[in-house]
Amino acid sequence: MESAKLNQSIGIVTPQVARFDEPLALTCGRELPAYELIYETYGALNKAHSNAVLVCHALSGNHHAAGFHSTEDRKPGWWDECIGPGKPIDTNRFFVVSLNNLGGCHGSTGPSSTNPETGKPWGSNFPPMRARDWVHSQARLAQRLEIDCWAAVIGGSLGGMQAMRWSLEFPDRIKHCIVIAAALKLSAQNLAFNEVARQAIESDPEFFSGSYQDHAKVPSRGLALARMIGHITYLSDDAMANKFGRDLRSGSLIPGEETTPEFQVQSYLRHQGSRFSGSFDANTYILMTRALDYFDLALEHGNDPVAAFRQAKCSFLVMSFSTDWRFSPERSREIVNALVEAGRPVSYTEIDANEGHDAFLLPIPRYMDIFSAYMRRVGEQD
Amino acid sequence: MESAKLNQSIGIVTPQVARFDEPLALTCGRELPAYELIYETYGALNKAHSNAVLVCHALSGNHHAAGFHSTEDRKPGWWDECIGPGKPIDTNRFFVVSLNNLGGCHGSTGPSSTNPETGKPWGSNFPPMRARDWVHSQARLAQRLEIDCWAAVIGGSLGGMQAMRWSLEFPDRIKHCIVIAAALKLSAQNLAFNEVARQAIESDPEFFSGSYQDHAKVPSRGLALARMIGHITYLSDDAMANKFGRDLRSGSLIPGEETTPEFQVQSYLRHQGSRFSGSFDANTYILMTRALDYFDLALEHGNDPVAAFRQAKCSFLVMSFSTDWRFSPERSREIVNALVEAGRPVSYTEIDANEGHDAFLLPIPRYMDIFSAYMRRVGEQD
Repeated sequence: MESAKLNQSIGIVTPQVARFDEPLALTCGRELPAYELIYETYGALNKAHSNAVLVCHALSGNHHAAGFHSTEDRKPGWWDECIGPGKPIDTNRFFVVSLNNLGGCHGSTGPSSTNPETGKPWGSNFPPMRARDWVHSQARLAQRLEIDCWAAVIGGSLGGMQAMRWSLEFPDRIKHCIVIAAALKLSAQNLAFNEVARQAIESDPEFFSGSYQDHAKVPSRGLALARMIGHITYLSDDAMANKFGRDLRSGSLIPGEETTPEFQVQSYLRHQGSRFSGSFDANTYILMTRALDYFDLALEHGNDPVAAFRQAKCSFLVMSFSTDWRFSPERSREIVNALVEAGRPVSYTEIDANEGHDAFLLPIPRYMDIFSAYMRRVGEQD
Repeated sequence: MESAKLNQSIGIVTPQVARFDEPLALTCGRELPAYELIYETYGALNKAHSNAVLVCHALSGNHHAAGFHSTEDRKPGWWDECIGPGKPIDTNRFFVVSLNNLGGCHGSTGPSSTNPETGKPWGSNFPPMRARDWVHSQARLAQRLEIDCWAAVIGGSLGGMQAMRWSLEFPDRIKHCIVIAAALKLSAQNLAFNEVARQAIESDPEFFSGSYQDHAKVPSRGLALARMIGHITYLSDDAMANKFGRDLRSGSLIPGEETTPEFQVQSYLRHQGSRFSGSFDANTYILMTRALDYFDLALEHGNDPVAAFRQAKCSFLVMSFSTDWRFSPERSREIVNALVEAGRPVSYTEIDANEGHDAFLLPIPRYMDIFSAYMRRVGEQD
């Protein structure tokens, strides 16, 4: 690790685990008898307990959002660009809580955990999770940390969906809701990509209907494929063109030169897929994509997002990125229009960025500026 | 089959096979010692042999472009909307030739054919094909059929790339070149989707490095995945939204109803994948996607498509579809701009269509009108 990076970050952080022994009733009708949540905190809770910010992670995220676990770490947490001293989520002002969601594979109870009824890993018997279930488990964590009301709940992509769900489930426990590169629900095309990703995992012979741990196997080929498919949807066409174009890694396209040409973009994807499949759990991937599929903010409000947002009491910041084709700016504008019609205070900005959906993770200057400016208001006039 | 459909079509057609015993030198440096091409013809060749039209197929196409093979057939050939009496490629005027490309799996020599050197199927040892190789094999078929010059060479997608290649390889043997929903070369995103499709096939344990026939196996799961990925890219986001939206096939999204919801779009994709994997060959799929990857019209002309098209002598019609995101209208405009600068006569039209890349197969009225109007000129003033 470069010491410059450590100095610009919150520094060395240590995850904690909270255990909850009261059963959690889930949206699917089942209940989780007991569970653990792994989480990290950055900054200090003030005396009034009014400066707490919850960060919700996306599909493949986890609790390690900022800082380093040790001086040996080569990379900081996944949102270190946005969380830290002087950064948009300024740890000099805010007490930031970041957890691994239920169903995850980084320390919170999930498909790899032991099912107390069988003594074996839950596998695909782990109950399906909805954004709503995560919000309820996060609310319990808030209670444990003596946070009655979040100054802000913040998330990108699936994290933004959790933030919106917070505004409806616990309108009195959230002051600001920051929704980045998200949507009110998945489109048919979004659903289709998720389905192919799951099919890739489920058709891997080492998946064993989700009980691969019992067989001491890992469906790594399927998970790598799923990641490759996802990865294409996170990058814009332009970003891929700029990053790789048609550059060759080896071989030649010139006629008569009998070598198999390999494009840079192809070996990059294979590398991404293989790295991911060594560090993520296949059942969690399936569970997370299903949570995305099932998310539909307005479903129980007659499919009317305006009616849904009438439940909310907080202020909103919505941000989108020009080349994001997974959750395009148009989808963010649907959120904004519904909020406006529901009479909620909302700021909206579309950031001009070349990087597609992934832009929400990157330190794009205008994005950082607007995010920081909004966060300076959070907690001030409340 | 409905008799109305038979009456509107060219009727019952019978494929023929042409055998070529002279070796074909390939772009990769290898040669094919002998080969067969399966083809169909529709309409009659005139005395001057001046009314012949070549139809080139796309990734998963074949020689059966129009008409029916028997009265039992439920569906006509893949481009029956465009080929037949009174249709854009009017069989009352033109003699239409449609073949299965080398490397295919519908009757022409390909990976499933017997390698004369080993007595076993070629499998993945079948030489890689380029659009250029297909053009040369098609030129031999033209000679066999006593067609010195095509009135037109026509294709959509990968077929359009072959048509463009014809205009450069044999400028004196083509009068009109019709390029539909194509591009000068694949983008990094196009390459990425093809790579994931191939990875899906190659990581299927029943692929056996391409020698699955020797093991009496078929990598059907991988091929189904590859098709599902492809299928998403053929449809527009809008088309998927209109066709499926978030409609459920079974189950419920309502909280508390513990059934697994299944979206229509998901079962549709699975159905498409499974149907395709029962009728197409995995090695051919890999070969065809590589031919797409390797196509780069201007590569040997200093990456300058203007310099490339200066070799051409024919007239061009280029057509694109507004919601095609596989080969967007922008990519067609690159072709048109290069043709204009190279001084070639070119007509261009962008068809407003909701159906994405697949639109080139569909009878969209404005598309049919413009295609027909151009084809009426073909052969008239030449």
